[in-house]
Amino acid sequence: MCQLLGMNCNVPTDICFSFEGFSSRGGKTDEHRDGWGIAFFEGVGCRIFLDEKPSVLSPIAELVRQYPIKSTHVIAHIRKATFGVVALENCHPFQRELWGRYWVFAHNGDLPDFDPENTPFYHPVGQTDSERAFCLILNTLRQSFPAGKPPLSQLYPILQAVTRTIANSGSFNYLLSDGEHFFAHCSTKLCYVVRQAPFAAAHLIDADITVDFQELTTPRDRVAIITTVPLTDNEAWTTLQPGELLVFQDGLPLASDVLGDG
Amino acid sequence: MCQLLGMNCNVPTDICFSFEGFSSRGGKTDEHRDGWGIAFFEGVGCRIFLDEKPSVLSPIAELVRQYPIKSTHVIAHIRKATFGVVALENCHPFQRELWGRYWVFAHNGDLPDFDPENTPFYHPVGQTDSERAFCLILNTLRQSFPAGKPPLSQLYPILQAVTRTIANSGSFNYLLSDGEHFFAHCSTKLCYVVRQAPFAAAHLIDADITVDFQELTTPRDRVAIITTVPLTDNEAWTTLQPGELLVFQDGLPLASDVLGDG
Repeated sequence: MCQLLGMNCNVPTDICFSFEGFSSRGGKTDEHRDGWGIAFFEGVGCRIFLDEKPSVLSPIAELVRQYPIKSTHVIAHIRKATFGVVALENCHPFQRELWGRYWVFAHNGDLPDFDPENTPFYHPVGQTDSERAFCLILNTLRQSFPAGKPPLSQLYPILQAVTRTIANSGSFNYLLSDGEHFFAHCSTKLCYVVRQAPFAAAHLIDADITVDFQELTTPRDRVAIITTVPLTDNEAWTTLQPGELLVFQDGLPLASDVLGDG
Repeated sequence: MCQLLGMNCNVPTDICFSFEGFSSRGGKTDEHRDGWGIAFFEGVGCRIFLDEKPSVLSPIAELVRQYPIKSTHVIAHIRKATFGVVALENCHPFQRELWGRYWVFAHNGDLPDFDPENTPFYHPVGQTDSERAFCLILNTLRQSFPAGKPPLSQLYPILQAVTRTIANSGSFNYLLSDGEHFFAHCSTKLCYVVRQAPFAAAHLIDADITVDFQELTTPRDRVAIITTVPLTDNEAWTTLQPGELLVFQDGLPLASDVLGDG
């Protein structure tokens, strides 16, 4: 199993505080030692840091902890290998291009019965069930909308349908984004918190570190943090329900009536 | 214009010495300040570091200079913007997946007259002529070999033909690799050196640094360094001829009789 961390905001924000706690779980406070990765969107551009080393030992993770990269859409992952060896090609998040945008995906869970037919456009490079699921999602979106990215109200029901199909094969918690929309699917375990005015102090569970967000923010800022297990012990985390597929925008989950919920 | 740096070896090797000199040209010894990037293959896995900051100022470039990442196929780029703004999405190298492998591409030159028709599989995310050319190359390979990667003798003439077509629109020096094969095309300016036993000391042009490779290597090691302008002042760099498309393997360019040269 693995753990997920996502961030969606209305203004570019660094993830140093959350990543400090999250990356501790990659070998210090928890056992997800088999690699890690993080993707930062900056407009349509995207940079991904990957390492098959444990996140508590990786010099690249140390850079990410120390160097504030500001982004509105971030997806991170720490891995405990189940399918696929410990290797760079099996580290999440995975990236592909669709409709002239980068899409990024990370998965928590196991899909033991998942064996999709060979998909025409996107092929996995590594051996994980996760990358196979990502390829099937993008193939489905591409075949459903060959002319380009449709409005969210058309895209959402198709994504929801293919997600349900895959989730029938096991547990399928995931984060998915193209830098515009930010999708979070709960199969068994996922939660989020929205930080907005009035901001308060937050204290990490995995390290004795407190940040007072009031000192670092403006009243208009809004940040959603989505993760497998809460990162702080003094904030009100909302638990997603099994089968729930949320879309975050500007640091808030969208109401279901704009999603074309099928 | 921009500059290219590539490395192909028979055993995984770090590129810290060459990258030290090369990255100096991103704002210190030369004017390529508009972003940089580097891709490292490790087996079929690939990690890319990108930054729109000058390579002499980027904390991520500092990590790459200091942290020895061992790889057999490396492609790096420093950018001086001509087409496309200074932004993350316009930093080379670019990456796409084809036939279940990652392909990585970086370009030096300008293609002012290059305006390919919309290509069916791969679409550019940024605004550079370079990414459009990369998408056309991959589309051509994909359409020519829909069933999967062909032998090099079949792939090479197709790559050579599409390269010539694109090169007719301007200057088109590039490095391209999927972690198995390493292609280097010279349109106007590209050179290489092969380091092998007996190893000697090499001295950088862009920084007063000397490394004695004899102390760091075994007699079987072989490393090819490919770049726009020589990095050292005491080694014999071989200049590629305009129109030449070399394939490096295990640190050596392959002889043309194995390439199906068209």
